[in-house]
Amino acid sequence: MTDSSSTALAATRDRLLDAAAQLFYSDGIGVGVEALCRAAGVSKRSMYQLFDSKDEVMAASLERIAPTYWASLAPSDEDDRPPRARILHVFERLEELTTSPGYRGCPFVAAAVELKRPDHPASLAARRYKDALTAFFQQEAQRAGVRDPALLAQQLTIVFDGASARAVVQAGALRGIAATTAGAILDHAGVVDQDG
Amino acid sequence: MTDSSSTALAATRDRLLDAAAQLFYSDGIGVGVEALCRAAGVSKRSMYQLFDSKDEVMAASLERIAPTYWASLAPSDEDDRPPRARILHVFERLEELTTSPGYRGCPFVAAAVELKRPDHPASLAARRYKDALTAFFQQEAQRAGVRDPALLAQQLTIVFDGASARAVVQAGALRGIAATTAGAILDHAGVVDQDG
Repeated sequence: MTDSSSTALAATRDRLLDAAAQLFYSDGIGVGVEALCRAAGVSKRSMYQLFDSKDEVMAASLERIAPTYWASLAPSDEDDRPPRARILHVFERLEELTTSPGYRGCPFVAAAVELKRPDHPASLAARRYKDALTAFFQQEAQRAGVRDPALLAQQLTIVFDGASARAVVQAGALRGIAATTAGAILDHAGVVDQDG
Repeated sequence: MTDSSSTALAATRDRLLDAAAQLFYSDGIGVGVEALCRAAGVSKRSMYQLFDSKDEVMAASLERIAPTYWASLAPSDEDDRPPRARILHVFERLEELTTSPGYRGCPFVAAAVELKRPDHPASLAARRYKDALTAFFQQEAQRAGVRDPALLAQQLTIVFDGASARAVVQAGALRGIAATTAGAILDHAGVVDQDG
């Protein structure tokens, strides 16, 4: 393969995955290959050159959005505030995301819930993403010196996903409840701001 | 309509809604009218005599399972334990539900997440069900005399839905984390067992 055709293929892949991530998120996993290729401006032939199946496209589209999604939630590496503030930053950003009229919940949880197949490649991608979120919480909990960082990290992930679900079910912004609930869990674990 | 034909129609309706609740839960909202009627052993003609659309069937199937689902979670009316124990009962029952291999999350949240249409009749049914769960928590929080029963009730609902999501994403039982997290929220609100 020439350099230019491999560059073209990479661009096609990106366009396909961006369209897939957007369509599956807004319309659900029922979106067909036809509609997907049309939205992406990609031929079915190209899609099947790149991926074996729609299932693989779904998984790859989640993998593709994961870094951007996390960047929209995470504190920056230069943010040297204490663990509590860095953890609450994630919940404050979640609150902001839920104010968007197009918010349809955490895309990773949504994929797992819709697929109902724990061994689907996209369900595995969703699990990896959620594990990475939990790992961030656990790392901060360790820095804070709590007794059971793994437990606290799981509890914070539960609050994150429950708050996301609430925004979907209630079809509205969270009005601070995500951060308040995470704050209660942090208080309970003794994670208070050293600066505060 | 004669009595016997109205009885037959009611039986058809129940059979259709039971099959719908089961199929939508296990396979998702993409299940078609054809497959649904086949599973229920009901003709499409009968379905459309009873309901205007598949959307209406979905909503009615959620309404139909709501009392049974709640009965599987709720403490009995005769359970005269203090509020904390009655609240934790719900989370302990949730833990048990998630050990079933067919567990696919809270059916009401799943419907709302899958539909992605806040004004869909089934999304409205899901919201009503979740509001009833929150109302139960709030009533118990009031009995416990907490400062902000509405806030505590919303936080407990978030933990409930986040734990349900965790069971789906991790494809496994919760191993006590739902009750532990609810317990942390109750501790934080000062809801301790008067008997404990």
